Amino acid sequence: MIMNMIEKKIDGEVIYDGKIIRVERDRVLCPNGRNSYREVVRHNGGAAILCITKDDRVLLERQFRYPYNEVIYEIPAGKLEKGEDPYQAALREFEEETGNKAESLEHLTDIYPTCGYSSEVIYLYLAKDYVKSNTNFDEDEVIETEYIPLSDVLDMINSGKIKDAKTICALSTYLIRYKK
Amino acid sequence: MIMNMIEKKIDGEVIYDGKIIRVERDRVLCPNGRNSYREVVRHNGGAAILCITKDDRVLLERQFRYPYNEVIYEIPAGKLEKGEDPYQAALREFEEETGNKAESLEHLTDIYPTCGYSSEVIYLYLAKDYVKSNTNFDEDEVIETEYIPLSDVLDMINSGKIKDAKTICALSTYLIRYKK
Repeated sequence: MIMNMIEKKIDGEVIYDGKIIRVERDRVLCPNGRNSYREVVRHNGGAAILCITKDDRVLLERQFRYPYNEVIYEIPAGKLEKGEDPYQAALREFEEETGNKAESLEHLTDIYPTCGYSSEVIYLYLAKDYVKSNTNFDEDEVIETEYIPLSDVLDMINSGKIKDAKTICALSTYLIRYKK
Repeated sequence: MIMNMIEKKIDGEVIYDGKIIRVERDRVLCPNGRNSYREVVRHNGGAAILCITKDDRVLLERQFRYPYNEVIYEIPAGKLEKGEDPYQAALREFEEETGNKAESLEHLTDIYPTCGYSSEVIYLYLAKDYVKSNTNFDEDEVIETEYIPLSDVLDMINSGKIKDAKTICALSTYLIRYKK
């Protein structure tokens, strides 16, 4: 059945090749034999890190997100450079943004944040052991960090106070894996 | 503190105004007084529906997603028309894609799938009571539906077989709310 679902690229054009995203518009052959167009945002992907303390507090950041014109709660995360290893990117972003240096990371899962029009993959990790280090923000980054009890974080997801998909996905994968 | 996080738009240009997405590039004033640029994908948003049977099976779809060149598992979902009420869109998509007509929907939460560069909001609902109706696919839509036991779905999230963010977020909000 899967063979009959596949759309094949006929040709395409690059609409925009920017700093963070590249936008393409492809003509595709659909399984029903017709042609259609697909708008695709290409992105190098991201890495995000769930950090939970021994007394079950979750490290969350508050950061202004321009597309929503809003300060939101989310776990530490950053973009990958082209071809960069997600594990290394996660280690780096975790230290730069939170001032914690992880000894190792456990791979939780990878997510497709918005499968209809973006090729982005966000690689999700759990920080295993970490020691205090120093933050090192990008020059236009303004980030506050908080350690919030896990039970409160679950309430914040349920009430819609936390809306960031990678944050909810990382936490739920952790809870499923460790049967909490 | 929040005041010091906000980025203000100075001016901007529309890079691409397509069928599904609109791409903008804005010049912004950052809290540190410098100017920077923000690439933003504007999108009307989406609505997605979690449907769980009385014997705890989850309705999942298998659909080819062009940006990943892959058939993926996900809950039923669709795009909003401009200005459309997400609740009405969810009711419509649920019926069209699955052949089930919901009597009512419970709002689970709203998610920001990829907060760095997209303004998309995905509105997540739980189908409450539903009766058999008829599917009505868009002409280039090829969708298969399956009812998969909840425990298997959790395994599929843990093992990375389910990667779709809205699916994981809808299910985890449901599990948090109903303490399962």
